[in-house]
Parts: sequence; structure tokens; C-alpha cells
Amino acid sequence: MARTGRRPGPGRTREKILAAARSQFAKSGFESTTIRGIAAGAHVDPKLVLHYFESKEGIFQAAMDFPFDPAQAIPELLRPGLDGLGVRLARFFIDIWDSPAGVRAHAIVRSMVTSESAAALMRDFVSREILARVAQALELDHPQVRASLAASQLIGLAMLRYVVKVEPLASAPPAKLAAWIGPTLQRYFTDPHATRP
Amino acid sequence: MARTGRRPGPGRTREKILAAARSQFAKSGFESTTIRGIAAGAHVDPKLVLHYFESKEGIFQAAMDFPFDPAQAIPELLRPGLDGLGVRLARFFIDIWDSPAGVRAHAIVRSMVTSESAAALMRDFVSREILARVAQALELDHPQVRASLAASQLIGLAMLRYVVKVEPLASAPPAKLAAWIGPTLQRYFTDPHATRP
Repeated sequence: MARTGRRPGPGRTREKILAAARSQFAKSGFESTTIRGIAAGAHVDPKLVLHYFESKEGIFQAAMDFPFDPAQAIPELLRPGLDGLGVRLARFFIDIWDSPAGVRAHAIVRSMVTSESAAALMRDFVSREILARVAQALELDHPQVRASLAASQLIGLAMLRYVVKVEPLASAPPAKLAAWIGPTLQRYFTDPHATRP
Repeated sequence: MARTGRRPGPGRTREKILAAARSQFAKSGFESTTIRGIAAGAHVDPKLVLHYFESKEGIFQAAMDFPFDPAQAIPELLRPGLDGLGVRLARFFIDIWDSPAGVRAHAIVRSMVTSESAAALMRDFVSREILARVAQALELDHPQVRASLAASQLIGLAMLRYVVKVEPLASAPPAKLAAWIGPTLQRYFTDPHATRP
């Protein structure tokens, strides 16, 4: 891949890659976007893209300012087994929103609600990178139903606690919230009847 | 209350009242807004406001284009008792979103996410008019915790089904969805342990 003119510094190259990634993700969605396409858009070698971001998920996470890395976080959450997964996942999710990274989570929710393309992009990413990872690790039927039901309880809690700020959810300590919604997530993940109408 | 000039027709009067209501609700919130204040803002007699809208809740519902009347719907949902309340409530909620009124529900969610004052207004209304009504009818402790947890599951389902459109939630038939999340709502409403960390 030809580079013309002065070679930009590392900070500028990273920014150029991220700008190209944002544009490609927005245009083509998560699935259809490739490392090669992003590299071409940024006029850099694909190897340089991988050097900075390691994977397509890594670029997406950086481009969208996604508050955690699912490739690392999901296996860690699942490692201790299904026992207690509901409370662990609830606590992990609440701790992110309560941390400084919560601002970014809030921005993502806002963009999903106001932009169809942002919603589609995030849907792709969340389905493939989060729900599919969790679903794969589950030993029961209908893993995609289970994972998306759990996601619905988590996103609803975020809406009421952080966006609409309904009490007592807005002020409750994280451990209490995790104890309240943990059993719901646990049931979605592990109850054989949870997905049978 | 003095009226000057030509008396406006009924359609215009209704619109004037709604405009005054929107402005007062946005400025003062749901609780602090009064029928008298709205009437003064619209330069009409408070009796005329009541003639058109019956109650402050009625004006709010019309001003915000709220998709159902909680004063009527909540008692109807609760009348058959706690048995099966979770599935009934889930189905009621999903049916509204699936109906033409779902467009208005979507608009309300969008405004809550993008505007702090819209979020505060809706929080007031939902807490007083929906959650408090449900909480009052519950026979267990911590009714406000129970009602807001149930609301979190409902709003999260709406986010994933209608806004982000995650499968299989986006395409599942209403009866299936109600069967999936109904037991969650039921547990929040009736399980003695649901609110004890």
C-alpha cells in the first residue's frame, strides 16, 4: 500500500485508522467491515491496523469508545461456571456504568436510540461479540433467546438507573441491584423452562 | 379569568390548553404543575381545562401523547389479582408497542434518552401514576422496588425489540415474549425474597 508524502506520527496514524473505521462501520455495519477495508480507507498497511488494535473487535471498541473488551471480559465472567453467573454479570455491568466509563455507555445508548444505523451497528456487535460468546458457553437449548433476554434486563436497568433515574434503582448500591436482578439473569441462563412458552 | 377578543373555537382552545400544559410540565415537572396554572397559561377557565381533559393525568397523557391512560389501564390489569399479573402486564405492554401507538412510545423513549428534562418529567409521571398505582395494590414489602424492577425488565425488552431490534426478541410473537418475561415480572411482584439482598 503506497504512502505518499511525509509519514505521519503514531498518534495521527491511529486517529486516521479510527476515522476510517468509524466511517466503514457506519456505512457497512460490523460484519461487512474488514481490516483490509479500514486499512485502505486510512491509506495504511493492514499490518499497521493490527499492530495498533489487534482485531476488528479491538478497532470497533476503540472507534465506538466501547467501555469494555468483550473478548476478554466475557470468558472471565463465564470461567467460574454457570453457578452465580447472574449476580456476577449484573455486578460487572453495573460497575462499568458506575465507573467513569459509564459516560461512554450512556453515549452509546443515546446514539442507539437516536440513529437507526448506530442501532444496527451496535446490534451486530452485541449479537456477535457478546451474546454469541455467552450463548456458546451455555449448556442449554435456545442460547440466543437466553442471552438476549438477559441483555434486555440489563439494558432496562441501565435505562431506569442512569438515564431516567427512577428511585430506588437510581440510588441503590451495586451489590443490592445485583442481588435483585441477578436471579432474573440466572433464570434466563439456566432454567430449562425459561425459553418454553 | 378574563378572555379578550373573539372566543376561539373548541379545537383551538384544546390546542391552547395543550400548549400551555406542555410548557408548564417542561418547566415545573409533573408534580408541581397544576390545572389552575395550565388554565392561567392558556387564558381559560380551569373548569374548561377539566371539561376537555378530566384530570391532570389526562392533560399530561394528551400533551405527551402518552400511549395509554394509567388511571384506567392499571386497575384493569390488577383487578384479576396477583395470579398471572406478570404475563398479563407483559402482554399489555407488548401489545401497546406493537400497535400504532407504539410510535408514540418510541418517541417518548427517544425524548427521555436525549433530554434530561423530558426524562425527569416522565420519571415523575411514571413513578406517581404507574409505579405507585401498582405498588399500592401489592400486598408485599418494598412495593416501589418491586414495581421499578418490573419496569426495568419491560423497558429493556422494548429497547431490544423495538429500538435496537435484537433477534430473536425483535420477531418473536407477543405471546411468546410474555411467556418469557412474565415470570420475571411475577417474581418481582410476588416473591418475598425478590427484594432482599
